[in-house]
Amino acid sequence: MFITFEGGDGTGKSSHATRVVEWLRGLGHEVVQTREPGGTELGQQLRNIVLHGPDDLSDRAEALIFAADRAHHIQSLVRPALERGAIVVQDRYLDSSIVYQGRGRGLGAQQIRDLSIWAADGLMPDLTVLLDLKPEIAMQRMRTGRGRLDRLESLGLEFHLNVREQFLKLAREEPERIHVVDADRPERLVSDEIRGLVEAKLEELQQA
Amino acid sequence: MFITFEGGDGTGKSSHATRVVEWLRGLGHEVVQTREPGGTELGQQLRNIVLHGPDDLSDRAEALIFAADRAHHIQSLVRPALERGAIVVQDRYLDSSIVYQGRGRGLGAQQIRDLSIWAADGLMPDLTVLLDLKPEIAMQRMRTGRGRLDRLESLGLEFHLNVREQFLKLAREEPERIHVVDADRPERLVSDEIRGLVEAKLEELQQA
Repeated sequence: MFITFEGGDGTGKSSHATRVVEWLRGLGHEVVQTREPGGTELGQQLRNIVLHGPDDLSDRAEALIFAADRAHHIQSLVRPALERGAIVVQDRYLDSSIVYQGRGRGLGAQQIRDLSIWAADGLMPDLTVLLDLKPEIAMQRMRTGRGRLDRLESLGLEFHLNVREQFLKLAREEPERIHVVDADRPERLVSDEIRGLVEAKLEELQQA
Repeated sequence: MFITFEGGDGTGKSSHATRVVEWLRGLGHEVVQTREPGGTELGQQLRNIVLHGPDDLSDRAEALIFAADRAHHIQSLVRPALERGAIVVQDRYLDSSIVYQGRGRGLGAQQIRDLSIWAADGLMPDLTVLLDLKPEIAMQRMRTGRGRLDRLESLGLEFHLNVREQFLKLAREEPERIHVVDADRPERLVSDEIRGLVEAKLEELQQA
């Protein structure tokens, strides 16, 4: 079972991913928690190139670096885990690429989707949890929690409003896979809803 | 005018590129000499990742890293040079990707061609010089000239025989753009033939 967490910066993806991982482990499952970009050592190097690279790094180059990270990460870490029966819980995947590179940077949603699927040799998530939160609140949370805003995070409110819209659009296009979870609630309620989604999907897959 | 040099390792691409660059500069042209992968600082970092990266680096990841290098190199260096009227002489481009990643690694010639053209936002060379040499001779030259064979160069004779065949096949498919130059002759004769090709293309472009 392959679960991805998606959403803008500051929506709580990584903390909710960690919670669901701990819960699944408590149920006795083998769980691999990972993320893109940067889920492998190579990915860390590639991520650093994007975050601290040249000012004139082109949008295409950035999209291709993320795609390279994905290709390596899926082939060397995610597929082997899935093949031995583990559950993989991943922070950001395909949908982030479509939103940030395809729509945000104007490279074309379909082209980035095709590029990502080629990179991952066709691997799609069984379940995608989209954490939805007003960017104003997400940015406030980020400023409180971390010292510094990185390149993506410093792009301004309008950018993040658009990102949110694009994620919601993807969820409308693929309602079977992508489930929107309202993250502007107490963490406990958000966690409970995510557990329910994961439980339902696990049962569905076990019956299949 | 955008000129690329293609061919297997040890066929003399970079020394013949340098010769044609010096000759063009002597004629008063502004010439930018460059190469892929690694024509920019970012490209050097990416090239190092491929050459000295993890043993389980997948073929797709490698192809995408080369495509990222291409996207950045073309946009930040080659296009600006062409736009101000300079001649760009480049060691390896599109055809190397098709041969090494598309056919050599089995990723698909058409898919790698599409990926490269997307990365380069459509930029095609005006003239491609394919230096053709038996791999036995090329490998002998390489061993004499350099201390160490890198990852690509240590792949063995069969690999390089196939690379040569694939380059020749591309030349048959695009005879207008790709000119095959027999590199198993004294350097002077090879240089003269290349100058003739460049001169003819320069005249053609000036008349257009």
